[in-house]
Amino acid sequence: MSVLVSGSIAIDNVKTQKASEENLLGGSASYAAIAASFFSPSGIVGVVGHDFPKEHLELLKSRNINLEGIEFSEGETFRWSGEYMEDMNDRETLEVALNVLESWKPAVAESQKSAKINLLANAHPVNQHEVIDQVTDGPVFTIADTMDLWIQISRDDLERLLGRIDLLVLNDSEAKLMMDTSNIVAAGKALREMGPKYVIIKKGEHGAMLFSENDFFTCPAFPLDEVFDPTGAGDTFIGGFAGYLASLGKDEFSFEDLTSAIARGTILASFTCESFSTHSLEALTQESFDARLETFRGYCTFA
Amino acid sequence: MSVLVSGSIAIDNVKTQKASEENLLGGSASYAAIAASFFSPSGIVGVVGHDFPKEHLELLKSRNINLEGIEFSEGETFRWSGEYMEDMNDRETLEVALNVLESWKPAVAESQKSAKINLLANAHPVNQHEVIDQVTDGPVFTIADTMDLWIQISRDDLERLLGRIDLLVLNDSEAKLMMDTSNIVAAGKALREMGPKYVIIKKGEHGAMLFSENDFFTCPAFPLDEVFDPTGAGDTFIGGFAGYLASLGKDEFSFEDLTSAIARGTILASFTCESFSTHSLEALTQESFDARLETFRGYCTFA
Repeated sequence: MSVLVSGSIAIDNVKTQKASEENLLGGSASYAAIAASFFSPSGIVGVVGHDFPKEHLELLKSRNINLEGIEFSEGETFRWSGEYMEDMNDRETLEVALNVLESWKPAVAESQKSAKINLLANAHPVNQHEVIDQVTDGPVFTIADTMDLWIQISRDDLERLLGRIDLLVLNDSEAKLMMDTSNIVAAGKALREMGPKYVIIKKGEHGAMLFSENDFFTCPAFPLDEVFDPTGAGDTFIGGFAGYLASLGKDEFSFEDLTSAIARGTILASFTCESFSTHSLEALTQESFDARLETFRGYCTFA
Repeated sequence: MSVLVSGSIAIDNVKTQKASEENLLGGSASYAAIAASFFSPSGIVGVVGHDFPKEHLELLKSRNINLEGIEFSEGETFRWSGEYMEDMNDRETLEVALNVLESWKPAVAESQKSAKINLLANAHPVNQHEVIDQVTDGPVFTIADTMDLWIQISRDDLERLLGRIDLLVLNDSEAKLMMDTSNIVAAGKALREMGPKYVIIKKGEHGAMLFSENDFFTCPAFPLDEVFDPTGAGDTFIGGFAGYLASLGKDEFSFEDLTSAIARGTILASFTCESFSTHSLEALTQESFDARLETFRGYCTFA
């Protein structure tokens, strides 16, 4: 197993202006692990309740994802319901029930502890620390995603985390919130100085930026003239990023490796936006992926 | 003369959270003509009043810009006063006085009528039509910039213009407004179907997108961790674009020529953001420009 993904596993109800569906597979770890598994063997650490649909488990198994770190609890699965407005950048959370996630203590399975890439998908920073504490066999690269909620209510734990990871990934609005600036570039530089060797700021439809001490990379998003459901696009992006890095089979990554991984994560995320849940990702062939990556390369090239 | 730029010539008062300055050279045509002149001989068509500072005229002259299309009116020059908030994407117009611009009828000078590139910088669509009517010696490429105000109050004239130009350029919010959609990619495609062969959507700090019938290009902005004054960045961008195109000395441009021009316009615009008015542009050397373009190329490249 090359990539260990920890985070939330959810049951989502999603409504857009065109369609709605219930009991979808959701959660940061689900999207990220399925995306990572496109490139590399991956594993997942999370918690589900008695109501977790069997078909979702079957899907994860079908991707050869190591599920030994999933706790099967007696409570109910973490649930999220949301609605997207006509502007798909604008969504309203209708309901959140943490349920079994509330008292979750991540338990990394023995078979998962040798993961090369430790991807802490969006979760409470305390849970992210707990995973780092357990992945003891020397991962070569540790990535943490976060969100506005943790910046607001758990900032100390999050700041402490920054010294324990190689890469922090977060949205532009979150980066601005955390560094109290309206300039994304300034926010990225300042975040990097707080500990991680690298920072990625995700800008949704505007792409992503990568900051290192001496270098910088900016990547547009793949253009979509219709976004069906963007839920999980950011999780897919970082999962694909981690999976691609792992597939390189290295113990150290160059800046160029990271830029390649960002392009691959960008392409996977574009597929996620084209269906509910992970449906497009599940159906994605190597051929479709390669074709879109080459198209994208053309879209970004200037003489 | 290779590029003819028509549009507004203004006296600006600009206030940011850090500094303020009055009686600055402003206006869409001023920025665009100075930017274009970095690459190619350019000319300007506009109107100024008796109060127009001599040093601004001297500056235009010092760039070898053909000023024969400038009308010197007895009234007062068009004036704009604005203030930028801490978030430089957010500005408030404190005062606008159209003055001599209100009754302006563009008069293209004989010496300007053979321009290869006809750049209609942001102005009333009726004025843009009037310039097209006069540039009769067959320009090879006609570009029009526009803004939300014209979409709102002069939509018919604007739509009629779309059939007379090769390229429409506008901001993302304006493209969305005009096509009544929240999806920028869909807006770009739909705008192109209204007449122009090409559409560029400017996204400020997120860069720009180019649409043609069968191709697409997306270009990030050059990253700046401090934006001093973004006034005129969009005008600089399209002026630089036009000037670079003209410098190629062709009668027809390929899609790749346009992508190259977008990258050059992007670099010039980044310099404009670093000072009040056109001060950074004025001081820009070929060496600084080349260095930033090469840096930018590295920032956009993935393996």
